[in-house]
Amino acid sequence: MSFSEVHPFDDATRLVFDGERFHGEVKPEYYNMVGPFGGITAATMLRAAELHPRRLGEPLALTVNFAAPARVAPFEIDAVPVRTNRSTQHFTLSMIQDGEIVTTATAVFGVRRESWSHTEAQMPVVPPPGAVPRFQAPTPLPWMQWYHVRLIRGSAFDDVEDATTYQWMRDEPLRPLDHAALAALCDTFVPRVYVKLKRPVPIGTVTFSVYFLADPNTIARLGTNELLGVARATRFHQGYFDQIGEVWSQDGVLLATTTQLVYMKAPVSGSS
Amino acid sequence: MSFSEVHPFDDATRLVFDGERFHGEVKPEYYNMVGPFGGITAATMLRAAELHPRRLGEPLALTVNFAAPARVAPFEIDAVPVRTNRSTQHFTLSMIQDGEIVTTATAVFGVRRESWSHTEAQMPVVPPPGAVPRFQAPTPLPWMQWYHVRLIRGSAFDDVEDATTYQWMRDEPLRPLDHAALAALCDTFVPRVYVKLKRPVPIGTVTFSVYFLADPNTIARLGTNELLGVARATRFHQGYFDQIGEVWSQDGVLLATTTQLVYMKAPVSGSS
Repeated sequence: MSFSEVHPFDDATRLVFDGERFHGEVKPEYYNMVGPFGGITAATMLRAAELHPRRLGEPLALTVNFAAPARVAPFEIDAVPVRTNRSTQHFTLSMIQDGEIVTTATAVFGVRRESWSHTEAQMPVVPPPGAVPRFQAPTPLPWMQWYHVRLIRGSAFDDVEDATTYQWMRDEPLRPLDHAALAALCDTFVPRVYVKLKRPVPIGTVTFSVYFLADPNTIARLGTNELLGVARATRFHQGYFDQIGEVWSQDGVLLATTTQLVYMKAPVSGSS
Repeated sequence: MSFSEVHPFDDATRLVFDGERFHGEVKPEYYNMVGPFGGITAATMLRAAELHPRRLGEPLALTVNFAAPARVAPFEIDAVPVRTNRSTQHFTLSMIQDGEIVTTATAVFGVRRESWSHTEAQMPVVPPPGAVPRFQAPTPLPWMQWYHVRLIRGSAFDDVEDATTYQWMRDEPLRPLDHAALAALCDTFVPRVYVKLKRPVPIGTVTFSVYFLADPNTIARLGTNELLGVARATRFHQGYFDQIGEVWSQDGVLLATTTQLVYMKAPVSGSS
């Protein structure tokens, strides 16, 4: 692919505004098991807010709730800037297919100003990207072809016992980073329960959040660099587990934190 | 106070449903600096979903966005169960004062079923509640009188250098725990920036989330026990910082995780 072509990510998140709602289409290229890859849905919701004619500022936070699996078909997004203040703006969003809401979201935009600055979290010490092979899923799902992931530790195929994953990751083919791509990258981790049980079980993300901790200039400066993703779990219980993650640039800038709560079908006994 | 009286928390989160919207009132007793204590607002939004006549299941996740400070005055909450599935239900909520939206939220409810279970996070080793004195803020805000907090480490007044706080906490006066109270407790931590700078600066929570990781029976069983709260920050940058927290029972059950993104006015120089 040359850079003159449209990147599949931009194709999958393309929206047309009719003055009232945004119109887009779920693409088979980004499908997961029983719905679109959650990251592409999150990126599309964020994009609707970004494209809104009344949008002010830049993304600060995004929460996306996966209410039902969207089909490979057109959809509409209702993106409402419900409150605009001097330095923040709040959006409430819904994705609708066949008159039914399939996804809800809230997004906060705002103005960033210079301030006292400090990074408290520690970037893990990991081998450089060139030292880690690309991960190839044994039975890849359609969306996975658009992500280049080097699994440093914590997959369903290694002997790591905890549920912590480190991975280098970027869009494939190469695409300059922006907030929407960063949001989608936050959802590329193998489900924590696979890492823990070393096998797949039926899962589905219920709710997903991203806090953007870096400014647009910093994000743009990273271009097509591989980013370090960190994902942990705190608890697996009664059909749900959580994920808490971080995304770092190679030079140690914490770009985003992310959380999600995920449904799992994992019987009490070890057997599936 | 005897248990026959209404607890201030229940008074502050009381809602009346008119068949369409919920009606309540911001109480001066739970005010913060320039708006209500965020925890009481979050609890009130959750309560609206809990009280909805079409509600199914129990709380799984809550995200609350603070769009504008509510005044000490009546409000309405629009709580819409936008999608009800076999085992999950999604709410979109707005709190309205004088025709303007002051708070937005999404809540996910669901059915919990027995499953494989594992707690991955580690509960910190801390002194028991009886060994830690109650924290008394030098200039307490109204809402603080309703929380009994024992600050184990990480305040604006100790020599802890990182932004991590451990505290024992419960409602004051005693009140049996439920999801709404647990959500509010997730917002009782001193702002991370105070812990780091050892002085207050103007702050305001932008967005706040709670994932409920324990079932209602477990929560009810805890009664009026003090809970262990853990709060960390990952980054302070360009006018915003985050908080990631956990709430544990004394016997080591992880009850909830919580995140928030907070606006701060902290100049580049050390001076305010």
